Order: sequence, then structure tokens, then C-alpha cells
Amino acid sequence: MKLTVVKIGGNVIDNPAFCKQFLRDFSDIPSPKILVHGGGKIATQVAEKLGIETVMVEGRRITDKAMLDVVTMVYGGLVNKSLVAQMQHFSDNAIGLTGADAGVILSQKRLVKTVDYGFVGDIEKVNSTFIDSLLQQGIVPVFAPLTFDKEGNMLNTNADTQAQAIAVAMTGTYEVNLVYCFEKKGVLSDPEDDDAVIAVLKPEDYEKYKAAGVINKGMIPKLDNAFKALADGVSQVTICHAKEVKLAVKDGVAGTVLKTE
Amino acid sequence: MKLTVVKIGGNVIDNPAFCKQFLRDFSDIPSPKILVHGGGKIATQVAEKLGIETVMVEGRRITDKAMLDVVTMVYGGLVNKSLVAQMQHFSDNAIGLTGADAGVILSQKRLVKTVDYGFVGDIEKVNSTFIDSLLQQGIVPVFAPLTFDKEGNMLNTNADTQAQAIAVAMTGTYEVNLVYCFEKKGVLSDPEDDDAVIAVLKPEDYEKYKAAGVINKGMIPKLDNAFKALADGVSQVTICHAKEVKLAVKDGVAGTVLKTE
Repeated sequence: MKLTVVKIGGNVIDNPAFCKQFLRDFSDIPSPKILVHGGGKIATQVAEKLGIETVMVEGRRITDKAMLDVVTMVYGGLVNKSLVAQMQHFSDNAIGLTGADAGVILSQKRLVKTVDYGFVGDIEKVNSTFIDSLLQQGIVPVFAPLTFDKEGNMLNTNADTQAQAIAVAMTGTYEVNLVYCFEKKGVLSDPEDDDAVIAVLKPEDYEKYKAAGVINKGMIPKLDNAFKALADGVSQVTICHAKEVKLAVKDGVAGTVLKTE
Repeated sequence: MKLTVVKIGGNVIDNPAFCKQFLRDFSDIPSPKILVHGGGKIATQVAEKLGIETVMVEGRRITDKAMLDVVTMVYGGLVNKSLVAQMQHFSDNAIGLTGADAGVILSQKRLVKTVDYGFVGDIEKVNSTFIDSLLQQGIVPVFAPLTFDKEGNMLNTNADTQAQAIAVAMTGTYEVNLVYCFEKKGVLSDPEDDDAVIAVLKPEDYEKYKAAGVINKGMIPKLDNAFKALADGVSQVTICHAKEVKLAVKDGVAGTVLKTE
């Protein structure tokens, strides 16, 4: 059986009107399906108002205890529950989850090497049995980018990685299509041309584009995650614009499809 | 089969050390069990820092859109997920839920009569089937005082009422013991003497204590809720101090037990 795992980020979450349109489109995608969301800018805005400084190292948020409380509030509360309530309105029977809920995604607090990221989690184990029990009841899990450790801590977790880990965990039971929604129409062969979407990307092409500097910066960890998902048994990985999610999933005619060979 | 539903409020939530002790005690209560939590003072503190004014009418929070975002963050995110992560540490396989999650508690936005409470929900329906499916998997549901309506809104909801509605909904399948944890040892026959706990309270005693002014103010809606739960099929309602929850549930020797006759 097919399962669709869709990851959305700030360009959906930070724009209420677009988010509503996205959720309407998402409701047209057949179940079973899973939504994974990132954090967006709201955590930074709330932190600023609360007088808590946001520190980023290489694009990653340093999460001390005060910042952990902010992301737990914003990602696990405001963003997650707003998505769930709207999805219920569009007849998706959504359930909002962090990794702590039903112990579904256990992490280890990241070890300090050169940088102390604080309360940041590296995923150790996804409980696919519980997720499957929800899917079998027609429920749509909606994951906030938070996990937990056995010490009783919530942990801030990268949403792209979390989507990949969930997708891989479900491959035991499902043929999984993992879709990364994005602010571009796909992976571009020319960064200056938003329509220059690469339809199919194979590992050897990826290496060539990287070497030529066409694919760079934030796209590299995203694509590394995506190719890792394929290598670990996910059937298809698609990278598309959030507004084309229905086209990408239902018709397979949008975005960049990653292939292993 | 027996089911224990425990409601906790601000005196547990606002005190991290005591909260930890409470959750350790709660983990010793046999499953199946459900925890329902209130909001505590954190929402008011966060709202203040965010420059959002808290307006209370007769002890109830007026919930405009800005305050709804605060309570969704604080109750549904910070408080709920902190409880869940700690419970996982104490080996309770907790799952944090609002009423919107899996559509488990549907409300109607309160109609405006003399006061416009804003985004406040009056509970219409509890989906006992979904809650039961969690209990049967050995999972402990942890409810934040938030529900939803079919328009896609989260709604702020009174935790005492929510505990009562959940307890009543589960009476179709379980023999339910509903426990309201409290900052006193039980219902007091002398408001000046914290040890003057009424062991058993029947409706006729309740009327007498009310007439004499011994039971008054905030205790009245709490006890009205509690007697309504009994009338609607809950087997036992206990009101006790949070630090005596184990004694009250496991040994039945603490707090005030409400009886219908």
C-alpha cells in the first residue's frame, strides 16, 4: 500500500492564507498520509518578544532551556494545533504529535563536539507500529519538529531529517513517497531561472551539479537527506513547490523526482 | 474494568519540583488512566511578556485571537509536552492531546449572551472510541484544556468541565473513578481548618454546606461539575490534594469522596 509523507516549512507556515490553501490541497491527497512541519519564523518572533536571543550556527538554532520552552510552545502548540484544527475543518482527521507523544520518536541529545547546540535531538528510533495504528484508523499524523529523550527532555529536531526518518521507518509496511515542499518549483539547473526545474535527479547528476556550484548551500543537506531516504528504502522522493503538492503527488507531474539509478 | 481520570491544576503545573513528584506518584497508579491538566499561571505570564492583556470575568479568561494563540502555545505546547516528556521518563507511555487531535473533543464556540468570552468552547461530543483505542494500547492520554470547532478554530476550554466530560464519555466501557486534584486535602467542613476534610459528601450535605456558606466561591462550580459526573454515570468522584493522589486512588483513604446517596 502507498503512503505519502509531506514535509512543509516556513513558506507555508508563515503565510496564513497560503497555509489554508495548502491544507485544502493536502486534504485532496488520498490517505494514508503524514504531514511533517518545520518551525518557520514564529519561534524567532516570539523569542524576541520574550527577550530571548536567537543564536544560529550554520543555519541551526542553538537551543538553550529558554529557547527550548519557546520552540515547544510554538512548534508543538501554536503551529501544530493550528494546522490540526484547520485540517479537521477540511475533513482530514489530523492528530498533532511530537516525538514524545506515545514515545513515537526517541532521540539522543546531541553530543557536544565543537558546538553545544543545547537541547537538540538526533533521532534514534521511530515507533512505526503506533504510527501505523493511527493510519489504519484513517487518522493523519501531523508531526512537529520536536522529539524527546528518556531523561524527560523535549528536544528540538530538524524537520527535514525527521520527515526522512519517519518515511524510512514506514517502509516496512508501505511503499512510501516522501515529498519535500519547498519555496522553489524543484531542484533548479539554473539558480537564476525559477522554471529550470530538473525533472529527474540521479546521484551522478547531483554530484555534477554540486561540483559545478549549481546546487549549493541549504540545498545540500536537504538533498543529502533525500538521497539517504531513497538509499534506506523510500520508494520515491519528490521536491516541489508547496502550491504544486497535489500535482506532484496525484499526477506525478511537478517538481524534481529523485532516483537512485 | 476500572479507569482512573485525574485532573490537575495550577498548584501542580506552576511548581516544577512538585509537578515532578506528582508525575512520579501518578506513574504508580495502574493503567488504564487519563490525565487532564489546566493552564496555571504560565499563560498569564507569557501573555504579559508578549504585551497581551489578560481579562478575567467571573474567574474565566476572555479569549480573543491573541489570547487564543497564547493558550494554544502554553497549554497545548509548553505545559502539555513538558508533562508528556516527564511522564515518558517515569515509564508512563503518555500522549498529549487537545480536543482537536483525532477530533477527540468537539465543542461549540460559546454563544454571546451578556459576555463575549471569545474563543471559548462548550463541549458537544467526546470520541470515546479513539480514547479507548489508546488505552487498549497501554497509552496514557494527557489532555490540554483546549478543544476545537468544525470551523477550524481551537477553543479554550475549562479543564474541570473537560475532565468531567471525558470521564462521563468513558462510562460506556469502564467503571470510572474521577479524581480532582486540588490545593486542599479535600472539601473542608471548616474553611479555616485544612485538616477538616469531609470524608464522604452526598448531595443533601452539599446543599447544607452551601446554605451555611461553608462551601462557596470557586468550590461551587467544581462540585457542580463533580456531582454532574456522578449523575451521568461516573462510579466515583474524589477530591483530594495532588500530593495524596496515590493514597486516594490506590487505597481510597484520602480526600473527599462524593456519593449520590
